[in-house]
Amino acid sequence: MSAVTTSGRDQIVVALDAMGGDTAPQEQVKGALDASGPETKVLLVGDEPRVRAEVERQVGHVPPHIDFFHAPQTVSSHEAGATAVREKPDSSIAQVCRLVGQGEAHGAVSAGHTGAMLAAATLNMRRVPGVIRPAIAVVVPSARGPVVLLDAGASAEARAEYYPQFALMGRLFARDVLGIPEPTVGLLSIGEEELRGNEAVQAAHALLRDTPGFVGNVEGRDINAGLADVVVTDGFTGNVVLKALEGAASYLMTEVRAAVTRTTRARIGALLVRPALRGMRDKIDPEVYGGAYLLGVRGLCVITHGNASSEGLGNAVRLAAQGAREDLIGHFAAALGSERVPSA
Amino acid sequence: MSAVTTSGRDQIVVALDAMGGDTAPQEQVKGALDASGPETKVLLVGDEPRVRAEVERQVGHVPPHIDFFHAPQTVSSHEAGATAVREKPDSSIAQVCRLVGQGEAHGAVSAGHTGAMLAAATLNMRRVPGVIRPAIAVVVPSARGPVVLLDAGASAEARAEYYPQFALMGRLFARDVLGIPEPTVGLLSIGEEELRGNEAVQAAHALLRDTPGFVGNVEGRDINAGLADVVVTDGFTGNVVLKALEGAASYLMTEVRAAVTRTTRARIGALLVRPALRGMRDKIDPEVYGGAYLLGVRGLCVITHGNASSEGLGNAVRLAAQGAREDLIGHFAAALGSERVPSA
Repeated sequence: MSAVTTSGRDQIVVALDAMGGDTAPQEQVKGALDASGPETKVLLVGDEPRVRAEVERQVGHVPPHIDFFHAPQTVSSHEAGATAVREKPDSSIAQVCRLVGQGEAHGAVSAGHTGAMLAAATLNMRRVPGVIRPAIAVVVPSARGPVVLLDAGASAEARAEYYPQFALMGRLFARDVLGIPEPTVGLLSIGEEELRGNEAVQAAHALLRDTPGFVGNVEGRDINAGLADVVVTDGFTGNVVLKALEGAASYLMTEVRAAVTRTTRARIGALLVRPALRGMRDKIDPEVYGGAYLLGVRGLCVITHGNASSEGLGNAVRLAAQGAREDLIGHFAAALGSERVPSA
Repeated sequence: MSAVTTSGRDQIVVALDAMGGDTAPQEQVKGALDASGPETKVLLVGDEPRVRAEVERQVGHVPPHIDFFHAPQTVSSHEAGATAVREKPDSSIAQVCRLVGQGEAHGAVSAGHTGAMLAAATLNMRRVPGVIRPAIAVVVPSARGPVVLLDAGASAEARAEYYPQFALMGRLFARDVLGIPEPTVGLLSIGEEELRGNEAVQAAHALLRDTPGFVGNVEGRDINAGLADVVVTDGFTGNVVLKALEGAASYLMTEVRAAVTRTTRARIGALLVRPALRGMRDKIDPEVYGGAYLLGVRGLCVITHGNASSEGLGNAVRLAAQGAREDLIGHFAAALGSERVPSA
């Protein structure tokens, strides 16, 4: 395959891990068929004979904007991500990242596990020039629309100097990929004035003052309230919060279901409200909203949920293509490469 | 008032801030009337003429297990907690803590603001001997019953040596106050093996190994799943997570309401499910579950939500009394005073 560029109307190439996740390769193939077209080619990466057979089973032929890349190994969700990726260089999850790293695709999408994707991206892609630390961004639903939360787990340690870069990357992502014109940025902290946050967060606050769109500290409850379009935090806090929100959504839906089946009267009512409540979970659960985006490496990496449907996977491919088309990576480089690294 | 002891069948005295919160003094007085009795005296702390008039308005006389302590000043929710408490030593929130600090009450309850209560307790009570850091414990609902999360914001910095004490205090609180016989303890961390948590959490894990009931790391989503009865974390993460869970509960209930009023069919169904869904919010929202408990000072401090009803306030008084009756403070001292302070 020839090298690809992101300028003009050239076709965008997205490498999709056809073997990652619980629903592979069926939903992966369906999602690829839905999202591919003259503007976006999808490269299905996995056990080629099996993936090709699935394409033919679904549509009877191989459409023009679908291609294959043979990766015979797979990484399961039970394996240790970093180890598995090192030991299986021919795994589909390692190869989608290598294809981007070598300029043969613009973006990588997998429903496999986040740790493996993070390891594969770190190993096989380069960082965008100027980026100190890649970050995992997740799109969380809120009362005022999608909110970008980062870092959701790429780095476990908090360093003040990471935050301005997280803010800039999150902002460009919100603008280029989610289409929010002038995204606001909040720093996740705690509210009581006695406890304005730990040392790293207080230092980060000082460094963020000059960041465009910075609105100051936000609290945990402000995430779902949508008080800022982009919420920056360290990878430990971000990961804990993201998973707490997922857990809350799951628990709440279980409780709602239990409540509406407790009495006959409620059960009848439940039948009537069910269509309205369908899709609620997709709306409130960050896990199924849009997946996780690894920002700061050369190419947009999207990690969707392991149970992702063809719709979710198609959407992830579209978002990766959208990022490439808007030249998100170029914008990161321009914003961060020229930036003086702030002192902590 | 004579000094009180916690042994035997002596009457427990709970100092209730009659002026704190949005519903004062009406709900405070009603809660005090409900929760007081031969075993528990409630000392209503606030503007005595006003509070006394409210008692007489509600029941026509002053019942035997109700008493008053005049505190003419109040701290509003808009004030900076620590400053307000220093400047208003005669405020009801400062006085409930001073009464406990001076041995005139066993526990303090307020629906005023957490920061002020924390400042008042730090200023006016002593620490339990052996306690390095007091912690705020909150009771969060889960699929398997109440879960104690601490620290929810007393200390912003994470130090490994705090965690074993948080674990011991959380465990004794779960046993003595919530009645969980052998509480399990989890350390809040992140799952991917690449990112087993930040340095403080990894050091804490090593120190927690000998803690009774320790089940290892738990993730954000395990809180609402109830994987451990007690979840220990640093005050920054705990505060962010608690508020994120509150925000999620509030957002979800709003979305459910919006969904079930969108169509006529759903609106009819909603009328039928409404009784079943009533109380859902109390069940899922940590904010209204039980309030926040300041552990590690000499007396149980309970901070209920600003909108707390008489039921919530009465329950907070009962829980404070229950802690005193079970000699929670004595158990803290016995468990922590004898304990070698682990090196970090």
